[in-house]
Amino acid sequence: MEDSIIGDERIRKQLDFVLEIDKEKNVFRQTHLSGHGRNENDAEHAWHMAVMAYLLKEYSNEPVDIARVMIMCLIHDVVEIDAGDTYAYDKEGLATQKKREDAAKERIFSLLPDDQKEEFVSIFDEFEANESAEAKFAHAMDNLQPLLLNDSNGGSDWKEHDVDAGTVYTRHIKTREGSEKLFEVTDNILRSNIAKGSLKKFSRELGAETYTALTGSDGEKKGDDVKSRSKGR
Amino acid sequence: MEDSIIGDERIRKQLDFVLEIDKEKNVFRQTHLSGHGRNENDAEHAWHMAVMAYLLKEYSNEPVDIARVMIMCLIHDVVEIDAGDTYAYDKEGLATQKKREDAAKERIFSLLPDDQKEEFVSIFDEFEANESAEAKFAHAMDNLQPLLLNDSNGGSDWKEHDVDAGTVYTRHIKTREGSEKLFEVTDNILRSNIAKGSLKKFSRELGAETYTALTGSDGEKKGDDVKSRSKGR
Repeated sequence: MEDSIIGDERIRKQLDFVLEIDKEKNVFRQTHLSGHGRNENDAEHAWHMAVMAYLLKEYSNEPVDIARVMIMCLIHDVVEIDAGDTYAYDKEGLATQKKREDAAKERIFSLLPDDQKEEFVSIFDEFEANESAEAKFAHAMDNLQPLLLNDSNGGSDWKEHDVDAGTVYTRHIKTREGSEKLFEVTDNILRSNIAKGSLKKFSRELGAETYTALTGSDGEKKGDDVKSRSKGR
Repeated sequence: MEDSIIGDERIRKQLDFVLEIDKEKNVFRQTHLSGHGRNENDAEHAWHMAVMAYLLKEYSNEPVDIARVMIMCLIHDVVEIDAGDTYAYDKEGLATQKKREDAAKERIFSLLPDDQKEEFVSIFDEFEANESAEAKFAHAMDNLQPLLLNDSNGGSDWKEHDVDAGTVYTRHIKTREGSEKLFEVTDNILRSNIAKGSLKKFSRELGAETYTALTGSDGEKKGDDVKSRSKGR
């Protein structure tokens, strides 16, 4: 924006950043909206995560600064404006993801005044490092949000990408670090989808060992055991 | 969701609410995304407002609980899932807006456990009442966010709806209650658009008195005076 209109450099920089991140609304994810809707975009996903964080904060394993969790959820995908969305189960994309996202992080947060660049990079890096209570809980939201949409659509996103339970569990096991309770919910949803055939049990080449290590059993048994288990926990 | 899958009634209700509000992504507003993009939806708008609230909190007239401002921004349009978006300058729609939105509020927040229904209704009502520092600052975001997008698109949303400066100022004057600084920015953006012809000065039938009362001058003078004013403040 023109400096003469806005009045001072600080607020001009802040509003330039605000306008830049509008582009997140055009970054589409692999997840589809409920009701077998269109693909979801990053801004919608982040909005949903932040509402969920506030609503479900009672289930965080540790007490969290909820404002920090929310802003972390809201900006955690901002780098995808340049780097694009990398699907959670896209191995090739994942290999180059960090390099692409680091360059984007530098460009986009540099639009801000120095002190806010530092603050936002620190929030972004905290999420990526996944060590603080806030980051772990935000990651639980990042996992649970698309799971709920996909579950509501009969697991169509998994089918489209031909992923199996081992691969899916490898991602979702991290929810446990943020919330034991929400991992329990996740586990029940995944078992239910395996039982219904919406998620294939596992591919022996890729996922069997991982799956067994993660769940302490084999896919066959777990799939059959959904009802008794969900009642018992 | 089936109770047997989720495990207990409380979390089942919470997740039903989470899934219900997914529908906000299908409620489209009159505002267009930057770069002359498509219409924006409510979830994207709320996401953008919440990021802006965090980023611009230094400009609030009063200190604010930023977590409360953010959750207020995130859920303030949830009733539009049933009631639809009412354009800020749609007089007929505005006349029935409250009744439609009250019914929606009751239905949607009743999906939650009682304590959270009470909390979310209280946050929603606080925004609507626009009396607390948090509500006033959230309203400033609700005004500034579409203004920035529309300004970036050369005022095309105003042109489409044939609104004039008096009508627009009547809405945006409320930004001043939340942030004098952000109203100053708003005022400069509006003056710039009047000067460029992107926003028509006012219609004598509807807006002249309002405009003069709000800005202490007539449209003609203000439009010509953008540059000197913005430098001087």
